[in-house]
Amino acid sequence: MGRIICCGLGPGDPDLMSVRADREVRAAKHIAYFRKKGRPGQARAIVEGMLAAGVREYPMEYPVTTELDVGSEAYARLLASFYDEWAERLAALSRQTDVVVLCEGDPFFYGSFMHLYTRLRDCAEVTVIAGIPGMAGCWNVAGLPIALGDDVMTVLTGTLPEAELERRVQNADALVIMKTGRNLAKIRRVLEAAGRLDEAWLIERGTMPDERIARLADVDTTDCPYFAFVLVHGRLGRRSEAAE
Amino acid sequence: MGRIICCGLGPGDPDLMSVRADREVRAAKHIAYFRKKGRPGQARAIVEGMLAAGVREYPMEYPVTTELDVGSEAYARLLASFYDEWAERLAALSRQTDVVVLCEGDPFFYGSFMHLYTRLRDCAEVTVIAGIPGMAGCWNVAGLPIALGDDVMTVLTGTLPEAELERRVQNADALVIMKTGRNLAKIRRVLEAAGRLDEAWLIERGTMPDERIARLADVDTTDCPYFAFVLVHGRLGRRSEAAE
Repeated sequence: MGRIICCGLGPGDPDLMSVRADREVRAAKHIAYFRKKGRPGQARAIVEGMLAAGVREYPMEYPVTTELDVGSEAYARLLASFYDEWAERLAALSRQTDVVVLCEGDPFFYGSFMHLYTRLRDCAEVTVIAGIPGMAGCWNVAGLPIALGDDVMTVLTGTLPEAELERRVQNADALVIMKTGRNLAKIRRVLEAAGRLDEAWLIERGTMPDERIARLADVDTTDCPYFAFVLVHGRLGRRSEAAE
Repeated sequence: MGRIICCGLGPGDPDLMSVRADREVRAAKHIAYFRKKGRPGQARAIVEGMLAAGVREYPMEYPVTTELDVGSEAYARLLASFYDEWAERLAALSRQTDVVVLCEGDPFFYGSFMHLYTRLRDCAEVTVIAGIPGMAGCWNVAGLPIALGDDVMTVLTGTLPEAELERRVQNADALVIMKTGRNLAKIRRVLEAAGRLDEAWLIERGTMPDERIARLADVDTTDCPYFAFVLVHGRLGRRSEAAE
């Protein structure tokens, strides 16, 4: 009887993986990871050079990406059966041996593993190892604390409708915007309207060898970086700073 | 010529430290860490058993905690000169050798190291190693993703005035409330008024051997746990879930 061990890999630099995740990845005999069809996959790229000889790999390839409308019934059905199938395969495998599932960042923070987790937790032994979220890698690269004192920090996704993004940004102090990609022009408009564009950074592949940091105001928003966050720093403790 | 290396230690379990922080802590000859007067200190407790023989320790003891009003001029002056003095001592030390500064969680996420960082970055070589934020350790312990899909996540501190907490909570989806302690009764009132009390968890010392998880509704709010977070999970992707 084995376990399913989901390892949070952190923001990208393998040296930022936790000691526990590092140990599990190096010892793994079976690893599974999500990827887009035809791509090497971000999670798999992070562990390059760490895997034991003879490890068996299970790339879990998303059945669709941009061909279908993400709001459609067809899309939802396709994704659900994709997760069903992989949950079943991993559960079956875990009855014989340990399986390590690789996840970028922290698995419980906007991670796709959630969809396997809800299907697996009642029929397999599942362990989830926390990781440094991608956003923390990005604010580390930006070289300034994201929040301090009694700053409020808001995490938004660029996929939200523009009106909701506007309302949320108006209310915000420190800001992290995930899922930027094709939403970058919308994000830029919203931050400009709120008077926060000049404080906004775009950080792409933070902590990875090809990381890029730029002021959002200077970026061509048709560029659509794949693995990028927009950060707006907090006011770093508007009131007094408690000694804790 | 040495460096000042600030190591994010993660949520508490030393196995959740990054590979890089683990290596720096074990190799350190000089370590500094914040603590309250007369207490061992959370950061120092995390590295217990990892330090090299003969390491020199520099406990940086906060000059005040609860004796002065945190909003007062006297408090601000006392804290500022405390940070000034330690910045000077660490800068002097780093001209001869490496110094490792220990910080719970992630140093750039509500970390006190910020006050040293702003004073040191122009006169010393400072490296900051990201860590798993304490909140991520807590939602890992709670065993459920904090946010998914296009959930909005808001991080608040219990030190905010009650009216502002109310306004922020009304607007919130997934919620993390830090600096709970003596603010717990206020936090509970606010969540109850917003109809979210039944979903709220109090997680104390998440990932540490004596961790405790409870429904906030069941907790005696005069208990004042020291190192605790209140979590309210998001709706786990209200709209469609994008394949990424």
